[in-house]
Amino acid sequence: MASPDLLFNLRNLFYLGAYQAAINNIDIPGLDADAAAERDAIVFCSYIALGSYQLVINEIDSSAATSLQAVKLLALYLTGDKDWMRFSVAFWHTFCGTSADPFGAPTMTWPWEDGTNSLAMAKRRMRAHFEFMEKLGVNKWCFHDRDIAPDGKTLEETNSNLDEIVQLAKQLQGETNIKPLWGTTQLFMHPRYMHGAATSLEVKVYAYAAAQVKKALEVTHYLGGENYVFWGGREGYQTLLNTDMKRELDHLANFLQAAVDYKKKIGFNGNSVPFLYDYPNQQNTSMTGMLRLRLLFYRSTVLQESSRLICHHELETARINGLLGNIDANTGNPQVGWDTDQFMTDIAEATLVMSSVVKNGGLAPGGFNFDAKLSVPFV
Amino acid sequence: MASPDLLFNLRNLFYLGAYQAAINNIDIPGLDADAAAERDAIVFCSYIALGSYQLVINEIDSSAATSLQAVKLLALYLTGDKDWMRFSVAFWHTFCGTSADPFGAPTMTWPWEDGTNSLAMAKRRMRAHFEFMEKLGVNKWCFHDRDIAPDGKTLEETNSNLDEIVQLAKQLQGETNIKPLWGTTQLFMHPRYMHGAATSLEVKVYAYAAAQVKKALEVTHYLGGENYVFWGGREGYQTLLNTDMKRELDHLANFLQAAVDYKKKIGFNGNSVPFLYDYPNQQNTSMTGMLRLRLLFYRSTVLQESSRLICHHELETARINGLLGNIDANTGNPQVGWDTDQFMTDIAEATLVMSSVVKNGGLAPGGFNFDAKLSVPFV
Amino acid sequence: MASPDLLFNLRNLFYLGAYQAAINNIDIPGLDADAAAERDAIVFCSYIALGSYQLVINEIDSSAATSLQAVKLLALYLTGDKDWMRFSVAFWHTFCGTSADPFGAPTMTWPWEDGTNSLAMAKRRMRAHFEFMEKLGVNKWCFHDRDIAPDGKTLEETNSNLDEIVQLAKQLQGETNIKPLWGTTQLFMHPRYMHGAATSLEVKVYAYAAAQVKKALEVTHYLGGENYVFWGGREGYQTLLNTDMKRELDHLANFLQAAVDYKKKIGFNGNSVPFLYDYPNQQNTSMTGMLRLRLLFYRSTVLQESSRLICHHELETARINGLLGNIDANTGNPQVGWDTDQFMTDIAEATLVMSSVVKNGGLAPGGFNFDAKLSVPFV
Amino acid sequence: MASPDLLFNLRNLFYLGAYQAAINNIDIPGLDADAAAERDAIVFCSYIALGSYQLVINEIDSSAATSLQAVKLLALYLTGDKDWMRFSVAFWHTFCGTSADPFGAPTMTWPWEDGTNSLAMAKRRMRAHFEFMEKLGVNKWCFHDRDIAPDGKTLEETNSNLDEIVQLAKQLQGETNIKPLWGTTQLFMHPRYMHGAATSLEVKVYAYAAAQVKKALEVTHYLGGENYVFWGGREGYQTLLNTDMKRELDHLANFLQAAVDYKKKIGFNGNSVPFLYDYPNQQNTSMTGMLRLRLLFYRSTVLQESSRLICHHELETARINGLLGNIDANTGNPQVGWDTDQFMTDIAEATLVMSSVVKNGGLAPGGFNFDAKLSVPFV
Repeated sequence: MASPDLLFNLRNLFYLGAYQAAINNIDIPGLDADAAAERDAIVFCSYIALGSYQLVINEIDSSAATSLQAVKLLALYLTGDKDWMRFSVAFWHTFCGTSADPFGAPTMTWPWEDGTNSLAMAKRRMRAHFEFMEKLGVNKWCFHDRDIAPDGKTLEETNSNLDEIVQLAKQLQGETNIKPLWGTTQLFMHPRYMHGAATSLEVKVYAYAAAQVKKALEVTHYLGGENYVFWGGREGYQTLLNTDMKRELDHLANFLQAAVDYKKKIGFNGNSVPFLYDYPNQQNTSMTGMLRLRLLFYRSTVLQESSRLICHHELETARINGLLGNIDANTGNPQVGWDTDQFMTDIAEATLVMSSVVKNGGLAPGGFNFDAKLSVPFV
Repeated sequence: MASPDLLFNLRNLFYLGAYQAAINNIDIPGLDADAAAERDAIVFCSYIALGSYQLVINEIDSSAATSLQAVKLLALYLTGDKDWMRFSVAFWHTFCGTSADPFGAPTMTWPWEDGTNSLAMAKRRMRAHFEFMEKLGVNKWCFHDRDIAPDGKTLEETNSNLDEIVQLAKQLQGETNIKPLWGTTQLFMHPRYMHGAATSLEVKVYAYAAAQVKKALEVTHYLGGENYVFWGGREGYQTLLNTDMKRELDHLANFLQAAVDYKKKIGFNGNSVPFLYDYPNQQNTSMTGMLRLRLLFYRSTVLQESSRLICHHELETARINGLLGNIDANTGNPQVGWDTDQFMTDIAEATLVMSSVVKNGGLAPGGFNFDAKLSVPFV
Repeated sequence: MASPDLLFNLRNLFYLGAYQAAINNIDIPGLDADAAAERDAIVFCSYIALGSYQLVINEIDSSAATSLQAVKLLALYLTGDKDWMRFSVAFWHTFCGTSADPFGAPTMTWPWEDGTNSLAMAKRRMRAHFEFMEKLGVNKWCFHDRDIAPDGKTLEETNSNLDEIVQLAKQLQGETNIKPLWGTTQLFMHPRYMHGAATSLEVKVYAYAAAQVKKALEVTHYLGGENYVFWGGREGYQTLLNTDMKRELDHLANFLQAAVDYKKKIGFNGNSVPFLYDYPNQQNTSMTGMLRLRLLFYRSTVLQESSRLICHHELETARINGLLGNIDANTGNPQVGWDTDQFMTDIAEATLVMSSVVKNGGLAPGGFNFDAKLSVPFV
Repeated sequence: MASPDLLFNLRNLFYLGAYQAAINNIDIPGLDADAAAERDAIVFCSYIALGSYQLVINEIDSSAATSLQAVKLLALYLTGDKDWMRFSVAFWHTFCGTSADPFGAPTMTWPWEDGTNSLAMAKRRMRAHFEFMEKLGVNKWCFHDRDIAPDGKTLEETNSNLDEIVQLAKQLQGETNIKPLWGTTQLFMHPRYMHGAATSLEVKVYAYAAAQVKKALEVTHYLGGENYVFWGGREGYQTLLNTDMKRELDHLANFLQAAVDYKKKIGFNGNSVPFLYDYPNQQNTSMTGMLRLRLLFYRSTVLQESSRLICHHELETARINGLLGNIDANTGNPQVGWDTDQFMTDIAEATLVMSSVVKNGGLAPGGFNFDAKLSVPFV
């Protein structure tokens, strides 16, 4: 139980910054497998501290322990190869969030906001977004169609608004070398979607949603987006007593299939199409749903926030099934059964989440979208 | 275990509507105490069905079982004495609710709404409210100051707006014989209250809240309101690391004491002042809080909605401590840790809630406020 | 909104027992589809009340509404065709339950129990079980191997104990015409299974579990059991940090495949093999797990108790995927995240559960196992 | 936002172990109050590292920040004055725990256990307990009467068993200088308490419980226990429909008052009598209950485990009301609504808990009881 800590000196050398001395003291007899892996991690981290990234990358092969894979990915990241850690800014919470809540009016004020949802406002917001991303040094973003451009009175006007903003985004992307990790469609805020989009009981709503997806696929492709995401936040039912769930799911399957067919038609074929499907009232049927929908060839976007369940289990389940596509980087509240999009502060949980990412060798062509709400400001 | 059901015939007679026959078959030998109480309830309900309310009221005295007390209260209600069942319409959800949710824009449209928060709009809404109450035959309402009249640019303008609407409400009350069960102050929606009102860290916020309460006490008194309620929905803290909870509670105590002193000063003394105090992060300190605040002489407003806890237990605890003042008539979601204000549909829970009300002989001078949100409309 | 209730008279006739008059008053003009379905349900229920079961069975065809299908199933049940409502007594809670809980010692005492777990005791318990079932008029039971016969010092002794009790059960089955709905293996109580059975990290535990399943398949087949169930209550992991979940699931897949192969080998092939698989820490991967395990041809046993999630959604999801096999007839606690096996008292939830069963035309060859714990006795 | 970190060098010096250099670099201009407090904490921790405990104790007075009070308490602890951190071993989980759970038989085997609950066994267990505590260097323990000595057939025999074990404990205490932090009565495991002890519906159960408390007070006093605790784990009701809660609470108040009177009578008066009272179905009425019971002069034992609620809020509420008496050092599961007695691993929560303890200047005469269950053993 209380055996001597054979790594005490090595750890001390490392934390004191004596990296070369740490490397020179690698021969420690009597280590078991776990301790040997820790020893190796300390030594490779010492090489990283001394700038010998390539040595670390070469020495750690695919059979090494998960902890060493994490060290190797850090070395890759420091050489500039950040492809395994594809981090994106979510436009919606970051630039459209108002820090309101169900009992409080908006508390956030930005100098560029004027209280309207005009095209001019949308342009100022988009410029602020690119300025913010450049300052952060982040090179990926993601968006819903309705976040970035205002609704119009007709679909034509709405699409025209979107085109105008996308034109600006394209120009700003060119100036900054920032690209979309993915685009998606907002099929939940507008009252027309109050009973769902692809599972709505009204054909005109279904058709409108389809038209939105068609347009959003086009603009995501035009902007060089690597992926396209579906979020079914309002799909589902209020009670089974008046719902034919099988029929609803068949409608959804047709909807998704048509989107995939159109994606191919327009040549948006370089990447897989991850999607997330949470059937309301039952968050965990994602993969079951995909199965039923014959959509298993898609990758899955997994919400890191899983308020009632343990999100790292879902991530690992997705990984071992080859379905790990994209991660919403936020967290929930264990006592609140819906998506509160909080900033993740639990290091233990984050470690388990990242262990799946490391075992997966990263998430490409998917990535992380930083999707945490802005909290009420402090004075 | 499987003893014969001695009340089978009596129950049948009652359900078939043979009330006189039921009354004639009261002598059933061999009943235990529970069965005798059920027999009596059936017989007294038969008298009620035949219109003999006064007989029921006279025969059931205060020593009778709870089930018989419920029958007596029903008889009282049918004679027109509805004082034990004081039911009020909550202005806010009923006339200000938009059926929005955290992921969806408003879905409710009313013919009288024009999308503004003008004084003219507030007047149309108030007229609709009184028309609705008259149609329902409900004679009590309750309100927050900001529900019924729009904010102005200054406190003076805000108070003046309130006066104008209160004048109209006073006139409509006169025409309809409807009165407030209680008034209250909205100390949570405005961004100034984002860190609390009476527990805010800013003295100007505290002072503004006090000014609001002063005015709201005056108008509630002017409208003939029977009670005044405090809801501390935003009081509390985000973390103890930067909060002196004792000091915050002392501020709150002073705030409440000042309100009570002012109430007396203006002659608003005919009734007790129920209040609700839910310290965020800890909903159940209501009575503890009152204790600390030396406010035990107040009655308590108990939320019928207690998502994580069992609301009937809280009600019964309030009752046996002489603190049962007012009930929010709604329910929560067992998996969602905040106030979702849903329509109560669980009969078993409602029965337990009402058993405390019956044992209490009603809630006067408090009552019920029907405080359920409007759901998304069906097409 | 407040249209006249066109069915008022018809409903009154039915509740008053005037069934023939109800049937004679079937022509009610102006009914919409929902009201017409209710009218039909009342009329068919009247025929049932008059004993005309066959008429009801003949008239309601497969295109009729779910409510009428429920009426038809009731008629079938009353003719003696109870195959759609296959109800079984669970041996474990009913005859092995002691009404203990984590803070309280056993509170249940049965006259046949002597405090031992001897073979003689097991025989007395089995006789009590069959006496109880005969008195209830239930003709199906279900069991784990270790419920009915005590563990021995070796596998041989354990199997020999089981054989002796099974011999008695076979005899009692012959005398009573009672049969197993299913058998299963207890792979969770014994300390050897503290880290799982088919997902244990020890090969000898895996092998022991396999030997138990082999024997339990044999005795279930010998007793004429219609199904065989797996419950993975202890499969899973404590932390992903030391678990290779993919490897564990592959072990489980091999385990289940071997069981199916052996089932075929011994000619236990008349029925499908439903199973339940709840991977700990993530209850909802049942179907996902089956997918991964290439086991989709099996039916699923769905726990009616789904403490955090909505069980009727799971049942309906199983049904529309053709996977509805068996239902644990009990319920959970919305605030307790594990299997509390309580008696179901929520009629609204039970109605939704039964609507899936009715739509499925019953559960054959599976059924219901009444799996509620005995509560602490009242004095 | 991104101001320079003025404490960077000071922090580095401290972590590198250059304590004297840290002390010499105390003058850092431009620090705000928070940074100055952190500077002081680093400097005082440097003095501690150099062994200058007394300097730290002298310099930090009662007006200093909470973080400095924590440093001062550390210095006191290191001088040997551990009175503020009174840590005790809970006999029950530590020596009676079997690592069973609702689905699994005991998995723990100790060399001194023989499977009986004999007096000889109880003595071996007590000797193991004192050996363990000596090895740990912990000098306080706590116990229920029934943990340490077996039940007998009569109260006399039970008390005689207890006396025999207490005699041994007294002797072992003398040899080791270990004393009870507190004693208590186990009023929940025995079937007689299945419907409560002081709130039981049977007078003989109430009387038996009172006799147990009388005896346990005597032996706790005899062993030099500093406190006496009540845990009402089985008090309460199953439904209000057949419960008179007011009467039950009055019974409980009389029970507690009688215990206090007897405590005084036997001269067990050196210390306060903390107690915990969790009325089932409503954990948070502790202080409310005390209020009703006119027992506010008692201190409270606060469960650190508060599965649904935030325990640090309860602790702080107890502290500012002068009621913080004793802390159960364990944690719960946010998804399981009962007392799971897990080892606390959440550092953020533990920090908030300890901030209340520091502000309270420790817990004397109460303390911590380490009350975490033994987990299933790893192979």
